[in-house]
Amino acid sequence: MKTIAVILAAGLGTRMRSRLPKALHPIAGRPMLQHLLAAATGVFDGAIVVAGPDMPELHRAAAPHPVVVQADRLGTGHAALQAAALLEGFEGDVAVLYADNPLITPETLRRLLAARQEPDQPPGLALLAMRPDDPARYGRVLTDADGDVQEVVEWADASAEQRAIGLCNAGVLCAPAAALLGWLRAIGNDNAKGEYYLTDVVALARRAGQRVVAVEAPEAELRGINSRIELAAAEATAQARLRAAAMEGGATLVQPDSVVFSHDTRLGQDVTVGPSVVFGPGVTVEDGVEIRAFSHLEGCTVRQGAIIGPFARLRPGTVIERGGHVGNFVELKAAVLGEGAKANHLSYLGDATIGAGANIGAGTITCNYDGVNKHRTEIGAGAFIGSDTALVAPVKVGARALVAAGSVITEDVPDDAMAIARGRQANKAGRGFRAKGGKA
Amino acid sequence: MKTIAVILAAGLGTRMRSRLPKALHPIAGRPMLQHLLAAATGVFDGAIVVAGPDMPELHRAAAPHPVVVQADRLGTGHAALQAAALLEGFEGDVAVLYADNPLITPETLRRLLAARQEPDQPPGLALLAMRPDDPARYGRVLTDADGDVQEVVEWADASAEQRAIGLCNAGVLCAPAAALLGWLRAIGNDNAKGEYYLTDVVALARRAGQRVVAVEAPEAELRGINSRIELAAAEATAQARLRAAAMEGGATLVQPDSVVFSHDTRLGQDVTVGPSVVFGPGVTVEDGVEIRAFSHLEGCTVRQGAIIGPFARLRPGTVIERGGHVGNFVELKAAVLGEGAKANHLSYLGDATIGAGANIGAGTITCNYDGVNKHRTEIGAGAFIGSDTALVAPVKVGARALVAAGSVITEDVPDDAMAIARGRQANKAGRGFRAKGGKA
Amino acid sequence: MKTIAVILAAGLGTRMRSRLPKALHPIAGRPMLQHLLAAATGVFDGAIVVAGPDMPELHRAAAPHPVVVQADRLGTGHAALQAAALLEGFEGDVAVLYADNPLITPETLRRLLAARQEPDQPPGLALLAMRPDDPARYGRVLTDADGDVQEVVEWADASAEQRAIGLCNAGVLCAPAAALLGWLRAIGNDNAKGEYYLTDVVALARRAGQRVVAVEAPEAELRGINSRIELAAAEATAQARLRAAAMEGGATLVQPDSVVFSHDTRLGQDVTVGPSVVFGPGVTVEDGVEIRAFSHLEGCTVRQGAIIGPFARLRPGTVIERGGHVGNFVELKAAVLGEGAKANHLSYLGDATIGAGANIGAGTITCNYDGVNKHRTEIGAGAFIGSDTALVAPVKVGARALVAAGSVITEDVPDDAMAIARGRQANKAGRGFRAKGGKA
Repeated sequence: MKTIAVILAAGLGTRMRSRLPKALHPIAGRPMLQHLLAAATGVFDGAIVVAGPDMPELHRAAAPHPVVVQADRLGTGHAALQAAALLEGFEGDVAVLYADNPLITPETLRRLLAARQEPDQPPGLALLAMRPDDPARYGRVLTDADGDVQEVVEWADASAEQRAIGLCNAGVLCAPAAALLGWLRAIGNDNAKGEYYLTDVVALARRAGQRVVAVEAPEAELRGINSRIELAAAEATAQARLRAAAMEGGATLVQPDSVVFSHDTRLGQDVTVGPSVVFGPGVTVEDGVEIRAFSHLEGCTVRQGAIIGPFARLRPGTVIERGGHVGNFVELKAAVLGEGAKANHLSYLGDATIGAGANIGAGTITCNYDGVNKHRTEIGAGAFIGSDTALVAPVKVGARALVAAGSVITEDVPDDAMAIARGRQANKAGRGFRAKGGKA
Repeated sequence: MKTIAVILAAGLGTRMRSRLPKALHPIAGRPMLQHLLAAATGVFDGAIVVAGPDMPELHRAAAPHPVVVQADRLGTGHAALQAAALLEGFEGDVAVLYADNPLITPETLRRLLAARQEPDQPPGLALLAMRPDDPARYGRVLTDADGDVQEVVEWADASAEQRAIGLCNAGVLCAPAAALLGWLRAIGNDNAKGEYYLTDVVALARRAGQRVVAVEAPEAELRGINSRIELAAAEATAQARLRAAAMEGGATLVQPDSVVFSHDTRLGQDVTVGPSVVFGPGVTVEDGVEIRAFSHLEGCTVRQGAIIGPFARLRPGTVIERGGHVGNFVELKAAVLGEGAKANHLSYLGDATIGAGANIGAGTITCNYDGVNKHRTEIGAGAFIGSDTALVAPVKVGARALVAAGSVITEDVPDDAMAIARGRQANKAGRGFRAKGGKA
Repeated sequence: MKTIAVILAAGLGTRMRSRLPKALHPIAGRPMLQHLLAAATGVFDGAIVVAGPDMPELHRAAAPHPVVVQADRLGTGHAALQAAALLEGFEGDVAVLYADNPLITPETLRRLLAARQEPDQPPGLALLAMRPDDPARYGRVLTDADGDVQEVVEWADASAEQRAIGLCNAGVLCAPAAALLGWLRAIGNDNAKGEYYLTDVVALARRAGQRVVAVEAPEAELRGINSRIELAAAEATAQARLRAAAMEGGATLVQPDSVVFSHDTRLGQDVTVGPSVVFGPGVTVEDGVEIRAFSHLEGCTVRQGAIIGPFARLRPGTVIERGGHVGNFVELKAAVLGEGAKANHLSYLGDATIGAGANIGAGTITCNYDGVNKHRTEIGAGAFIGSDTALVAPVKVGARALVAAGSVITEDVPDDAMAIARGRQANKAGRGFRAKGGKA
């Protein structure tokens, strides 16, 4: 049986105080919506996103999944119904999810689906429930002796006794498409706000004589995100997961709470990550690498046994080959640092290929940009670039070549040649610092 | 009715183990005393600071408020009495506060004052009380059925039953000047330490038939700071407040606990602050700015849409105009980076004005100091400063001028001109790295 | 009476997922084993380490203490027995400790030893016990009315009633050598895993009619480390101790949780440590020093009143004399910065001696490495090194000498002389950025 997830992402997120639609605020370097799409498409066969009007960025972020627009914000039931045209005639199960529940796991979605499709006596509707530390004003889930759901009572309508129930409705639910569409169309808006609430589906299913079951999941997966403070809390949860996974995989995090991962960071075994390291998206770190404090990596690959930092920045397109060293105040961008090559101090290496075993002196700058185009610098294997050198790209320094310290290299240097390009020194007696008025 | 706050700041803070008077230790970038002065002068009409002897820095920090010196440290009651000469004949209310309660809020002080000045039946004395998690050895506040204060019992004198009371005396109190002065003069020192305790005012007020009321406030505002560990705890409380306010105002803090604010940091909406960012005093960040990880800002303004960091340092006097970019390992001091201008890599720009749209290459250094004076560098709009360039100030580079990479610029460059100032390159065959004995 | 500690360090630590033996994983910059050796040798007269086979690094880390190898891993009792040859005939007390309890304090070991050697009626065996927050599957310590240990019951064998006991066996024990050896040899391996358990010594001692006593110690000292997550937790405990000690000693840590200490960091009074500072091993910071955010120090000495950072890196062999300043993006290695000297911006000073009061301009690079050897740079007192200067070592700049900005210095500069070594500037009209196709 095919399955589809409908993701409600039309919310403005007024309390976020942002121009960005709420569903696009990032967690662990990825918009919330994409977290949910990743989890949903790992479990369901397809996904449909319900956007609000005037959210072009959201359409881009949802691609290639279809997006339907909820022109008027008339409640969650109305939002889910916008997907009707795409669900008409669909014979499988449909789950309704929320873009601001980005930490929901595939495993939880799988349990929801499995509950709905229980082989023996499948219920007509399955929903996710949780037991929050503070149940606050969540709707309470009332169950019978068998554990089946009798009713979801909104907090405002709940008796004191019902409010004492810890099991709360998380809003996420799953049902066969046809039944769900029928119920969605039957939801009314006879309430204080005049909105169509998705939760009413539960009562409609019960009225239709359907069995309804609740699947419990951790609060941390189901807590909504409505403010930047809640966004920060969700980020902390996501980071805690990523840190634990990194450590379980055999990486040492000296100070885990100070390491910020991207959702897709990949660390090998016996990797050591020092304090205060930030990973942007697209980083792969192989076994035995040491990443020292205050390093910032994104879009790069660091191969076995390399040493990075402290104070190193690796930008997209960078590859550090086996045993390479990148030291303090060094930036690499779209650069390959060859096996065992070293760039240890105050350098900018952009659009550069550096051969194996080359040594890049302190203060080396690749002048890769002429204000119009970017140009490449190529440095051969075993070359030695003296300190404080500028390499004006496009330029090639040959294998085993030597560039004298302080040079500005504008022409190619052949293999095994020495290049020098600097002014001559003159010493002028008696014109020292004191003569200039300095208090030396 | 006029009001005055008397702030007791004479404490040595022996447990701080510091040469600095306790009241001058900073929290969120501002001395404790000034936190308290800011809160107090927002509520009271004036403030008087009671200092210890030999605290010239404290007099400076208290300015323009009058400072009286408590020559001998004979207790808090004696300290408050040092302000008598300035309070004599004053007809309004006087509150006595402590410099080591720097987190007390104006709102709490306002509630204290309002309680004392209650229109119907104003009490003769109002004091602040709290319910600490661990009431420890605080004096307990005994109240009657109406909630009025009957007595403050010191911990040492309290019965087990009294010690079980959670309401504790915070020491802060407020009364009409004349009455307070009378009570202060009546305090005795017949106790183990031979000191004059301000708390005795409560008993004196009661004995005088005055009604005494307690105003409860959060422990976090009233906890004293007597050690560096307590100072760090207060700093954490202050930072938590500042972080929450920033997020509520519409800023995203990716990892709030790693961001350190100054008491006066101003962030616009849709500002993103990455992990490990430090704000010193005097920073204003406008809407839509992105401040990336490991950035350090003080005394600067960052206008709309600018991008700062990672690893950027903005020092006092810096302005980043709209859409400006400051990248890694770049320091600006007393510098204006024009609209859309970029300085993205390893540069020092001090005492400089950089025109709109200019591009500052990697490794650019303004040589602003000759050991005696500082000089300015001016770079015109749309200029392109090649990488690894030194600009020896005072010097002007014209609009749309081009400076060749690796140059040392000592003379002005006209608009639309190209300047070049570097050595010529010579390549010498066979004199490469291996010839020098290198193992390439 | 002489005493010896036997430290069991043969564990592979499979759950660490590491090639490094578990006992060598570092905490606060020092391998676990060495933490334990430091604590043990502060209390006992000698230490013997039990290693697993093929752990050459462990032998090195244990030096000069003798290491015996447990060729087959047959349990903790068997491991302890490997030390028998070295203990034969020894007449003092022997304690058995675990290398993965690195946070055990000398004070706790002293209490253990004192309990065993109680003058009046010394027990035959003393063991360490703890009351963990979650007693989980620890063996429970059963005591009689006098508090003496009756039995240690393994969790698997414990009744529900026994499992409710909070006092747990930490595994560490102490007994006279001869008795202990006898018991170790009597341990059987008739259990599920076929291993020899050290804990059985307790039952053997009891059977021999010996009194056994338990010494309680904090769980934080006795919790084993079996995974990287537990390693990180132990690191956090160690750091919390070091931070508290630093603050109690009179240092201000603005954001204590972001400061990472080494086990041997020494801070003076009125030192201020900003947020996100990392100390590697071997750092001494004297009174009144300010270390600003994002600084990284190892193997260096910072003398009174110096200012370091933000973004400074001090590497081994560096000394910052009184009142020296090291600013942002500056690296020093094996360098002495003289009294009051300054290196405030983007510099690399390696293998250098800088005289008192010298000023090192922004972008100064010592070219200390020629690819084969390292050479020294000497800068005299009161010298002024202009910005963007390369100093090609070996080279000396005399006292009060002046080096012009942008120079490449290859020859010595005499005292009081001025040196200049840079290209001449040429301005070419009409060849500015726009002429190159730039959109200025």
